[in-house]
Amino acid sequence: MDARQYDIIQGETRTPEFLAKVNANGRIPVLQIDSESGTRFLPESNAACWYLASGSYLIPQDRFAQADMLRWMFFEQYNHEPNVATLRFWLRFVGEANLSEQQRAQVMAKRMAGQDALALMDSELSSRKFMAGNVVTLADIALFPYTHVAEEGGFALRDYSNVQAWIERIEALPKFVPMV
Amino acid sequence: MDARQYDIIQGETRTPEFLAKVNANGRIPVLQIDSESGTRFLPESNAACWYLASGSYLIPQDRFAQADMLRWMFFEQYNHEPNVATLRFWLRFVGEANLSEQQRAQVMAKRMAGQDALALMDSELSSRKFMAGNVVTLADIALFPYTHVAEEGGFALRDYSNVQAWIERIEALPKFVPMV
Repeated sequence: MDARQYDIIQGETRTPEFLAKVNANGRIPVLQIDSESGTRFLPESNAACWYLASGSYLIPQDRFAQADMLRWMFFEQYNHEPNVATLRFWLRFVGEANLSEQQRAQVMAKRMAGQDALALMDSELSSRKFMAGNVVTLADIALFPYTHVAEEGGFALRDYSNVQAWIERIEALPKFVPMV
Repeated sequence: MDARQYDIIQGETRTPEFLAKVNANGRIPVLQIDSESGTRFLPESNAACWYLASGSYLIPQDRFAQADMLRWMFFEQYNHEPNVATLRFWLRFVGEANLSEQQRAQVMAKRMAGQDALALMDSELSSRKFMAGNVVTLADIALFPYTHVAEEGGFALRDYSNVQAWIERIEALPKFVPMV
């Protein structure tokens, strides 16, 4: 598997070529799948993860367990990423001084909603080891990346001790590869 | 299947009982599943739909097609609902005059993002009948409800003729039941 980088600050995912060929939604990541029937593109990080994990233990087969795991992946997209990840992007990569007026007006709402998302994870993780039960699933893989760097968005992980313990459990998994 | 209504304007999904028993995230809808092993709750509309549609033709079995369908369900949660549905809720149910300062500051960003989401659907629907191909799937069921009432959020559906044709195709499906 190869990785190709796009610089979103430079607008590289909004070029006519990217929009026409890779993702009309102008966003990354996009999974490129080459096969005998041609090249296909799969936008949306969680859909790409679903494709890659298909048939593995990371997707529970039990009907309720599978839907309950997807619950956390939808939570990630709705409650977590737009707040925890977006604030990190704004503060660390765009820079507070460079935020537009519209972005600035949303910081407080995103701060509160991000805290709510982390608090909910913390509460859920008080009674089990991983987000969707006591074994690791795709839900953990979806929620781990932006959670473990949430401090860079101004969130205090020390306020969420169960989340901290979960981060350590994930980092201790066999074959865990840290992000660079 | 029975339906129980909660009034979110009255805060009925934020009561201690609701948070402890039904959904700690304080949101509806939540699917309640009663079985011999007890009562379980499944929050997140798209996770509940996944559970209900499990094993039916609404979820493609092909590996890529299934992930590509989930792509549109994640798009619905990330790009569509927070803009198209939230603006409708604010304008039709909360009332423009009652919006908080924080909400008011987000209206323009949500208007533009909602238009982008509808435009992307329109562009995708120029080459196929339904969101994830030429047969109806759960992706259509996830995107139809708030799209077909988008006018109530101030969006002009006449600007999206492929979306309008798609709405008509869905309404013409056998067993289609209009929302009340």
